[in-house]
Amino acid sequence: MSLLVTGTIGIDTVHTPTGKAEKVLGGSCAYFAAASSFHSPVRVVGAVGGDWPEDHRKVFSSFPNICLKGLEERKDSRTFAWGGRYFENMNERETLFTELGVLEEPPPQVPEEYRDSKYIFLANTHPEVQLELLSHFPDRKLAVADTMDLWINIAHDELLKLFRELDGIVINDQEAEQLTEISNAISAARKIIEMGPSFVVVKKGEHGAILVHENGVATMPAYPSDLQQVIDPTGAGDSFAGGMMGYLASKDAADFRSIQTSLAWGTVTASFTLESFGLDGLLNTTRDEIQNRMKVFQSAARIGE
Amino acid sequence: MSLLVTGTIGIDTVHTPTGKAEKVLGGSCAYFAAASSFHSPVRVVGAVGGDWPEDHRKVFSSFPNICLKGLEERKDSRTFAWGGRYFENMNERETLFTELGVLEEPPPQVPEEYRDSKYIFLANTHPEVQLELLSHFPDRKLAVADTMDLWINIAHDELLKLFRELDGIVINDQEAEQLTEISNAISAARKIIEMGPSFVVVKKGEHGAILVHENGVATMPAYPSDLQQVIDPTGAGDSFAGGMMGYLASKDAADFRSIQTSLAWGTVTASFTLESFGLDGLLNTTRDEIQNRMKVFQSAARIGE
Repeated sequence: MSLLVTGTIGIDTVHTPTGKAEKVLGGSCAYFAAASSFHSPVRVVGAVGGDWPEDHRKVFSSFPNICLKGLEERKDSRTFAWGGRYFENMNERETLFTELGVLEEPPPQVPEEYRDSKYIFLANTHPEVQLELLSHFPDRKLAVADTMDLWINIAHDELLKLFRELDGIVINDQEAEQLTEISNAISAARKIIEMGPSFVVVKKGEHGAILVHENGVATMPAYPSDLQQVIDPTGAGDSFAGGMMGYLASKDAADFRSIQTSLAWGTVTASFTLESFGLDGLLNTTRDEIQNRMKVFQSAARIGE
Repeated sequence: MSLLVTGTIGIDTVHTPTGKAEKVLGGSCAYFAAASSFHSPVRVVGAVGGDWPEDHRKVFSSFPNICLKGLEERKDSRTFAWGGRYFENMNERETLFTELGVLEEPPPQVPEEYRDSKYIFLANTHPEVQLELLSHFPDRKLAVADTMDLWINIAHDELLKLFRELDGIVINDQEAEQLTEISNAISAARKIIEMGPSFVVVKKGEHGAILVHENGVATMPAYPSDLQQVIDPTGAGDSFAGGMMGYLASKDAADFRSIQTSLAWGTVTASFTLESFGLDGLLNTTRDEIQNRMKVFQSAARIGE
């Protein structure tokens, strides 16, 4: 079933304790699209500037399931650019610079042929833009959004308006606490459900994720990675959402049990993102490898008897 | 198969954001014994003072599977006493007072009839005492110990000596990091395995637990509890270890897969401890309720496909 993502496409520069990636393809939309494409065809709505490297288009195009008809190239604009540095524990990072570029301009157009999209993911951007984009998909079956601390702080009312239109929210644990002032992830998610959506997925990084849904609660550990295996966490959350939504679109399902299973696909897909800089981890894997790793994950997270 | 625990028996006073429990039965040995007794008969080796309340013995005796022949009452000594206060998030606490009492005296005697014990748990106490007690069980099949930050700081060498004699270690994530200076739980556990034991279980509180074993890695989320359900976390870690070891003793098994399954029994058993002050959560539950909750946990932590 048709999956569509809209969000940022960026030029990322990432420093980690062990290395550096300069001006690589990044952004929430890029990670989501690459991760979801292993599970389902995916349509991209986004904008880049005239400075967008030809190489980045090639990287995008090397994922066969990604449709780039909704990718606008604005010759006289600049592409969104982000630089960050991870600390020793790989869980915390600081932003070194942000150049908004096209993100300060009107949102990208939605191609007419995309309007029948049923599974919609609004990757992190201004909630007003997310809401505007959502309005183009009247026949949607499942609309899910991500957000970030910035919007919780400066666009709280717009965020609450968006929440009322969504089926689900994917949010990290710090943001869930910031939004609700509740530190327990399950209790925070319940409070967010009162704001509108039917379900909330709280991403806890190395501690896994929880799903709180009108019809149940699910909990899942992270894929068990050694610290040595974690090379660059950038985009892991978007890859998680991509694996999740890609699975749901492929099954054309949005019930509690399917969403629970989708968390595992998100976890396993994102584990490849972590293992290399930028999109390299996803570029160098295959659907078969993802499926094999799912078996490893099921075995490691098995609860016998 | 015979399970034995040795550790502290205390008079606990606990303050939480929602209430208070004064002078209740506590200590690592008490929580472990109560939790394990749902799965296996358990022998207790410990000491209390002349001030030990008769009520506490009654609480202990109300768990039918606990043998108290190894519980020494020292008329002229004082029972170990501990007071603590939990902060709003229920994950952190401060110690208000500690009265060591019998813990400053020679360790308890091991009754002759206990010497054939096969499954040994050395709950948290001075590693020298743990090592001395361990020497009484030449026929042991599985010896596991817990420890704490204090001993990592002040008895590091004794701890390393103990580790070389053990099959397994149960440790919380902060202590694992303190011991190894590695923040990733799996990497830290691998380093601890180099110190001697065949496996390490890292307890991560609300984030679950991981098992790193010579033969594999397992990962498990916590039982999904709302903040409202968490009344008093005291003893949850010892209850977890009790559920784990009780299951292993009941199966007479200590292979990787059995230990993996035992983590789930530990998780589910400990979830009852959290829900009331002191031992009340375990006092008010039954083997059937624990088994039912295991089904709920399996369903919530299920990884489909």
